[in-house]
Amino acid sequence: MEKQIRYQIGNETECSFKNHADYCVGTGRMGLALQQQYQEQLKLVQEQIGFRHIRGHGIFCDDMAIYQEYTDESGSIRAEYNFTYLDMVMDAYQKLGIKPFLELGFMPYKMASGDQTVFYWKGNVTPPKSYEAWSGLVQAVLLHLIERYGREEVVTWPVEVWNEPNLPGFWKDADREEYFRLFQETYYAVKKTDSRFLTGGPAICGVDDVLWLEKFLEFCEAQDLKPDFITRHHYMFEKPEQCGHYSYGALRDPMTALGELKVSREIIDSFETFKGLPMHITEFNTSYSPDSPIHDTTVNAAYVAWLLSKLGDYCESYSYWTFGDIFEEKGVPFTPFHGGFGLVANGTIPKPTFWTFAFFNKLQGRCIHRSDELIVVQKDDGSYCATAWNLCLEQKECLRLYLTLPEKEEEEYCLLTKTVDEAHGNPRKIWHDMGEPSWLSKEETQILKDSAQPVIHTETFCASSCGISFSILLQPNAVVWFQLKKIKKCKDRGYDYFCGEDPAAGTGN
Amino acid sequence: MEKQIRYQIGNETECSFKNHADYCVGTGRMGLALQQQYQEQLKLVQEQIGFRHIRGHGIFCDDMAIYQEYTDESGSIRAEYNFTYLDMVMDAYQKLGIKPFLELGFMPYKMASGDQTVFYWKGNVTPPKSYEAWSGLVQAVLLHLIERYGREEVVTWPVEVWNEPNLPGFWKDADREEYFRLFQETYYAVKKTDSRFLTGGPAICGVDDVLWLEKFLEFCEAQDLKPDFITRHHYMFEKPEQCGHYSYGALRDPMTALGELKVSREIIDSFETFKGLPMHITEFNTSYSPDSPIHDTTVNAAYVAWLLSKLGDYCESYSYWTFGDIFEEKGVPFTPFHGGFGLVANGTIPKPTFWTFAFFNKLQGRCIHRSDELIVVQKDDGSYCATAWNLCLEQKECLRLYLTLPEKEEEEYCLLTKTVDEAHGNPRKIWHDMGEPSWLSKEETQILKDSAQPVIHTETFCASSCGISFSILLQPNAVVWFQLKKIKKCKDRGYDYFCGEDPAAGTGN
Amino acid sequence: MEKQIRYQIGNETECSFKNHADYCVGTGRMGLALQQQYQEQLKLVQEQIGFRHIRGHGIFCDDMAIYQEYTDESGSIRAEYNFTYLDMVMDAYQKLGIKPFLELGFMPYKMASGDQTVFYWKGNVTPPKSYEAWSGLVQAVLLHLIERYGREEVVTWPVEVWNEPNLPGFWKDADREEYFRLFQETYYAVKKTDSRFLTGGPAICGVDDVLWLEKFLEFCEAQDLKPDFITRHHYMFEKPEQCGHYSYGALRDPMTALGELKVSREIIDSFETFKGLPMHITEFNTSYSPDSPIHDTTVNAAYVAWLLSKLGDYCESYSYWTFGDIFEEKGVPFTPFHGGFGLVANGTIPKPTFWTFAFFNKLQGRCIHRSDELIVVQKDDGSYCATAWNLCLEQKECLRLYLTLPEKEEEEYCLLTKTVDEAHGNPRKIWHDMGEPSWLSKEETQILKDSAQPVIHTETFCASSCGISFSILLQPNAVVWFQLKKIKKCKDRGYDYFCGEDPAAGTGN
Amino acid sequence: MEKQIRYQIGNETECSFKNHADYCVGTGRMGLALQQQYQEQLKLVQEQIGFRHIRGHGIFCDDMAIYQEYTDESGSIRAEYNFTYLDMVMDAYQKLGIKPFLELGFMPYKMASGDQTVFYWKGNVTPPKSYEAWSGLVQAVLLHLIERYGREEVVTWPVEVWNEPNLPGFWKDADREEYFRLFQETYYAVKKTDSRFLTGGPAICGVDDVLWLEKFLEFCEAQDLKPDFITRHHYMFEKPEQCGHYSYGALRDPMTALGELKVSREIIDSFETFKGLPMHITEFNTSYSPDSPIHDTTVNAAYVAWLLSKLGDYCESYSYWTFGDIFEEKGVPFTPFHGGFGLVANGTIPKPTFWTFAFFNKLQGRCIHRSDELIVVQKDDGSYCATAWNLCLEQKECLRLYLTLPEKEEEEYCLLTKTVDEAHGNPRKIWHDMGEPSWLSKEETQILKDSAQPVIHTETFCASSCGISFSILLQPNAVVWFQLKKIKKCKDRGYDYFCGEDPAAGTGN
Repeated sequence: MEKQIRYQIGNETECSFKNHADYCVGTGRMGLALQQQYQEQLKLVQEQIGFRHIRGHGIFCDDMAIYQEYTDESGSIRAEYNFTYLDMVMDAYQKLGIKPFLELGFMPYKMASGDQTVFYWKGNVTPPKSYEAWSGLVQAVLLHLIERYGREEVVTWPVEVWNEPNLPGFWKDADREEYFRLFQETYYAVKKTDSRFLTGGPAICGVDDVLWLEKFLEFCEAQDLKPDFITRHHYMFEKPEQCGHYSYGALRDPMTALGELKVSREIIDSFETFKGLPMHITEFNTSYSPDSPIHDTTVNAAYVAWLLSKLGDYCESYSYWTFGDIFEEKGVPFTPFHGGFGLVANGTIPKPTFWTFAFFNKLQGRCIHRSDELIVVQKDDGSYCATAWNLCLEQKECLRLYLTLPEKEEEEYCLLTKTVDEAHGNPRKIWHDMGEPSWLSKEETQILKDSAQPVIHTETFCASSCGISFSILLQPNAVVWFQLKKIKKCKDRGYDYFCGEDPAAGTGN
Repeated sequence: MEKQIRYQIGNETECSFKNHADYCVGTGRMGLALQQQYQEQLKLVQEQIGFRHIRGHGIFCDDMAIYQEYTDESGSIRAEYNFTYLDMVMDAYQKLGIKPFLELGFMPYKMASGDQTVFYWKGNVTPPKSYEAWSGLVQAVLLHLIERYGREEVVTWPVEVWNEPNLPGFWKDADREEYFRLFQETYYAVKKTDSRFLTGGPAICGVDDVLWLEKFLEFCEAQDLKPDFITRHHYMFEKPEQCGHYSYGALRDPMTALGELKVSREIIDSFETFKGLPMHITEFNTSYSPDSPIHDTTVNAAYVAWLLSKLGDYCESYSYWTFGDIFEEKGVPFTPFHGGFGLVANGTIPKPTFWTFAFFNKLQGRCIHRSDELIVVQKDDGSYCATAWNLCLEQKECLRLYLTLPEKEEEEYCLLTKTVDEAHGNPRKIWHDMGEPSWLSKEETQILKDSAQPVIHTETFCASSCGISFSILLQPNAVVWFQLKKIKKCKDRGYDYFCGEDPAAGTGN
Repeated sequence: MEKQIRYQIGNETECSFKNHADYCVGTGRMGLALQQQYQEQLKLVQEQIGFRHIRGHGIFCDDMAIYQEYTDESGSIRAEYNFTYLDMVMDAYQKLGIKPFLELGFMPYKMASGDQTVFYWKGNVTPPKSYEAWSGLVQAVLLHLIERYGREEVVTWPVEVWNEPNLPGFWKDADREEYFRLFQETYYAVKKTDSRFLTGGPAICGVDDVLWLEKFLEFCEAQDLKPDFITRHHYMFEKPEQCGHYSYGALRDPMTALGELKVSREIIDSFETFKGLPMHITEFNTSYSPDSPIHDTTVNAAYVAWLLSKLGDYCESYSYWTFGDIFEEKGVPFTPFHGGFGLVANGTIPKPTFWTFAFFNKLQGRCIHRSDELIVVQKDDGSYCATAWNLCLEQKECLRLYLTLPEKEEEEYCLLTKTVDEAHGNPRKIWHDMGEPSWLSKEETQILKDSAQPVIHTETFCASSCGISFSILLQPNAVVWFQLKKIKKCKDRGYDYFCGEDPAAGTGN
Repeated sequence: MEKQIRYQIGNETECSFKNHADYCVGTGRMGLALQQQYQEQLKLVQEQIGFRHIRGHGIFCDDMAIYQEYTDESGSIRAEYNFTYLDMVMDAYQKLGIKPFLELGFMPYKMASGDQTVFYWKGNVTPPKSYEAWSGLVQAVLLHLIERYGREEVVTWPVEVWNEPNLPGFWKDADREEYFRLFQETYYAVKKTDSRFLTGGPAICGVDDVLWLEKFLEFCEAQDLKPDFITRHHYMFEKPEQCGHYSYGALRDPMTALGELKVSREIIDSFETFKGLPMHITEFNTSYSPDSPIHDTTVNAAYVAWLLSKLGDYCESYSYWTFGDIFEEKGVPFTPFHGGFGLVANGTIPKPTFWTFAFFNKLQGRCIHRSDELIVVQKDDGSYCATAWNLCLEQKECLRLYLTLPEKEEEEYCLLTKTVDEAHGNPRKIWHDMGEPSWLSKEETQILKDSAQPVIHTETFCASSCGISFSILLQPNAVVWFQLKKIKKCKDRGYDYFCGEDPAAGTGN
């Protein structure tokens, strides 16, 4: 069974496609950034995709050891700050060419007003005992970063206040007024350090989000606070069921799900003061649980491709949660493929969705086509570059795209495709066939890495007076990147590719 | 069109398969080993294939600068030796885990009796003015190597005297008597340094080879010389025609060609004294010209697979000429793919034949099947490992191998294949479609490297009472490696590969 | 002021010097081994020193996440094991060429009978709720290691039961009987897994050590347990005082301190059954607190040199606590130099004591002199290799060693020294003069690394009929390595080191 | 014996010091850039010094294989160009962050009008048979570079025509008129390719230089050629004597030698048309022979320091000949230290002069003192940075510099020195004492590398109302870099560098 779609490209007026796929990516808590395997995974991500910012929880958690107290000679408790690990993390980011998108949280144990925690790693989610101490911490950290990495650099790092305060698990009692106070105090602390710091919130997820967002903006307006951007999260999963170590659920209809973002956008724009304020999706993914096997699949890759083609219509960025599988929110994973959020599995093995990002980040140029399966851009040198996908949420059928591009020069063109589908660039399938080993030998790791690469294919053809026509076949949930370039023939003197054989005589070389 | 062959494997008695594919590999002249790109290519070869020895020309050529002369106070000419470059080359080999198979030649300019040279790089091919000086050089070099790398190590490096003296291009007038003298003098010089050095010759190619070999052995017998091994070369190409920078010709029928080796073997064994003496093929390839596009093709890969399955029947080793494309015998190549001898193209891009060696070098174990398309071995852990090929010299047709392996346990097995054919692991095809660029951008190099990997595929199935049956489809001139392993099921608690979907309902994941 | 000592070396009979300096080294808790900086520091240590084993706490602590529980369908609590992080740690050790000396502890939270913890990182120090569960954990871990790293390899990793149970901080109530039970259960669990595992205890420190050791051995004798070795710890510091983040105390007289080991040795030998049983010092250092500035000094280096020259007389090994400064027992350090236990400071900067180990690990050969300031060995090639030190605990005075070695050949010799003292190989001094910055710029880190190298010096002289005489000057607390080798003169034709100048005419080159 | 000089720094008006030390460095012929060891040496140079351009001979020599000819179907000889090796070399330069300073020469064998060659590697030094062919080659090469590396980048690479045509060894008969023709043809060829290419000559050495320069400028004026810069060479050695493999001579008085440059400058300025035209010294060194032991010495380092302090007064750049010892003009060197031109010896061991460049390239800032022994600059952050040297050509005496800097704040300052002298950073001395081995074991190489680092020392002191006064002691021919920085005291809570001891009580730590 094969679905067929035809596009005559180029008759369209310029398409609007805002590509912010490379703006930001999520990460497990900051303390994990000290790990060797974390850095190795991020290195691969930066080499092949190249994000500009990274955002994660826990900069103030006790494993980062920043906030400390001691008793001075007079018997008073005094704060002191430890930047040893913070520097190691930031040095690693700098070396990997990525800047933080600073999320301020959670609460240092000694500053916390309660002992409620979140996650296996026990982030304290209660308000500070003293907002003065909190502001002191925020400023001390920013000033230290400025001193170490330079003021001009550090003020380009956005600052977000806390994470998902609209959930009682992340902020005691989901106390809205208390969050607003936290936001206000933090906002002032940051701006006093340097008014150029872009500062935003409320970092909410999709629970009571309408109410929270409205109240937040009303509060800001009332208090004359001017956040530089608004943040929220966006997950595309129905409530999952737990089975053993894993969570299973259904993907939401993507168009419906996007509606929530539209609403958020409209709320912001309904405030005169905040109209047009940038909105950042500081977390998004399909499932919101780090144990959902869906994350490692090709359907995830195709679903995310669909999202990346649309999200720029609603917001300034969308940070995939997360780049890698060093992540401990529900404990340490038992197996290499375990439905973690990451683009990269432990063992530094890219998953299909890794390539969705790699493919989108290459879509730089003038967009000449955008549809539900395909984006095509034209580069300055005249060549075309595209990403296509075949998202199959229900019926699994192949998709054949018949495309005509408006090249009329009677020359030869080379079409180069990189394909990820069930049989290619899909290491989880190989791992499954191996018996789903819970640990990998060196040889197995190498096979999985090798099998995780997209397959590359080329074809050539000539333009006619109608343009260049060709087709691309996509297996169910395939994601395909292609480029079409005019061939500059360089045949070397005497070179015969067919070695003197008649190329038409057989099928081989 | 598809050819079909069925094999019921395991009823055979143990097959004889002598796998010496990893014993030795050829190289461009020693002076080229100083180059960065040479070392990079050899590094890839050693990581993925892992040869034990390396053999090439020119250790005594002037670019290696070993032999020098000066005039002493009394006005006499005296020899002195310069080991600066020799050490750099040998250090590089040591670092890469490969030992030399020392070929002694050609003649240092200052020691030469004439000025006849061979190759673009002008190796002098005339006898020494003084055999005393020659022996002095041989001994000085061996003693230096012993001093630097240790006697126990260096005596494991075989020594071969000169290269193809039966061609007038390689040895002035192809003067047989003069070569015998060279052999004798060298033999004594080497054995005096350490009698454990394995020393051999006559390193002839297939011209007048019968006569040369008989005369050589008669000479040794008469002079009471006991070479430790006999060497010859073996190319499989009809005389090529030159067209521009390139040479084209026809591949010989492989079985006929092997006949020459059989004759050589019989000649050796016909001498009572030399019966059973090891024979090393110190060079082999399809074409003997480093500008034959055939070298970069899949047909070359399949042809060499056929050869590797048979050569062990005739000789102790067979050294593919050469590991890489840093090679200057006919000048510096103009383009990345140019029909060079190498397993690796410039840009450090593996060619199809690279994988033939990688696949054969993994065939370690008990051979349970050998035919004209397939070798299967069983490993100590019970798993199977195989290489199959579909050599199509004339008609290009697909080959389907139906195989039954004697596993009877009712368990599940995983078949993992790595395939190289026209569409996979064949970077020259991509390069051709790109327009055969004479130089590569970084991006193009990366695409060619990525496209040069075999495609990996897995399947699972159960054994029945008749064994495990499955089929392998080989495109024309494909080379396929596969392993079959019993699956040790490790399903983690709650893990469902199909994420709750019915796997039978569609084609995807 | 200068002290002078003369040694006529070589008239002595062969000296007894047992050099076990490279047998084992300590580490911060196992979970820290996941960190990039930890691995970088260990890499430096292995490249320049090369220990065979590594021992640290916390393999069973919850950050390693090995022990997990879940409720099965029937509602029973069941154990499951997670080896994800264990494999990462052991893979890192394997890559760095070091084997674990397994210390089994502390108690996983879910298996613990109480909630008493030790250290900033909260290792649980209570007995298991169930010894069956404990034995199950021990066996599961060992079996997994055997499966992954090979049985023959893993049985060479010694196993020690718990850490310092004689302190109530490390083992609830310092309950001796309970520890003996733990030892017995663990011993059986280990030996059942493979009887070849060398298993020992009681890992005590110097508190009540005589009583504990006697009782432990009595218990073993009574229960017919045969530990393969006895372990204890050894620190050389008077009880320190805390001041701010730091601990200060006095070094004990080293000879007196060694007396404790002598007593331990005698206790063991007083048991007929255990006479001659190997004794391992599984931790030693000067101060036992990871915030003692003494650790980073040259006096520490000289003191440890003294120890390394003597400890082999009493025991089979002595594991310096620890190789690096990634260590969190009293929290995360605030500054690069902070008196951590490590041989290497954060920033991967070697400290003076690093070189003490590097120098001792090169003392391989026949010992021909051992005194309180100097050890000299002779190598197989006839050259001499030595380490000297000038330990100044009270009065700081220089030491000049006048040495005569028994070389009588009238040839020239080269003396090469590597010196660490106040002015050389002492990065803490540079850091102090820089103002003791709490964090380092890249440039400062590089300066400190460069300044952390020993200074190298050479001199030449001739032997006379009395041997070779020369002197070595040691600044207070210097540690000096030197070698003396006969020079093989290789002057190249025409080379004049003095470029034609009269070397005697000036002081320069 | 000690010389003493006092400088009260800062009363001077701003000193003129033009620091072009990092503009360009020389290299052995381009074909050698393919070598691994060459690239390794250049990597070290770029990491620690960081030059902007690199200039060497032989881009058109036959080992680079660029110029080729063939006979077409009509029987005509036609040119073709091979860029395989050129791209490898330029890629390596790009990777190492260095741009070529293109020297066009020598003559490809097939284009040459004669067979006169220069050097062991036989560069052909005869005029082209056809200037049309020559211009075609120049343009083809430039256009290829533009295509591969981008036009905007490539036009920043200066172009120089030939090398030392005023010597008959480098240009047949030193034929001036013929060189002028070559210059003119080349100039037009380059400018036609892109008029932005800066193009210059005549690349003369100090033989008949006055006459050549005058005639060259007259020719240019007459022909209305506008070279963008003038180039010449500058060596500081009296004619050396050869002894065995080595050349010995005397260093010229540096001030007298500089006179030649002054003359060149004046000649240029005497032409109205060319007044103020930039002059580049495209080669300089002490001896002009690559076998002069002086090159590896500290006197060379001090002499070059003197030169670097002055050369900017006369010219726009001065390219030290050469960065490394992979160099074959007089053959392949026999030993690691052999008086090669390089800043780095084979084995990648920096020589003393390496540090002269490293020290000068850090002298960025406002010059506040320049004298015959010292240059001091002040940086934007207020700190001072300086290089001092003690050039002793005759009498070898120590030099003590008493310096007062105009800091008046009553704070503490840290003086950090890096010293190279006879005993430090002088690996040749260690090698000499080892017996001058002609080849190095890995261990010896490591010792020499370690010994090749400058010794680092710090001191602190306070400013008084008269400024900060301190002294620097320089051994004969020492080169010392130092910086003086105000200390920002960061003492951590409770840290006592002296560990509780009285620092005044002894000499140690």
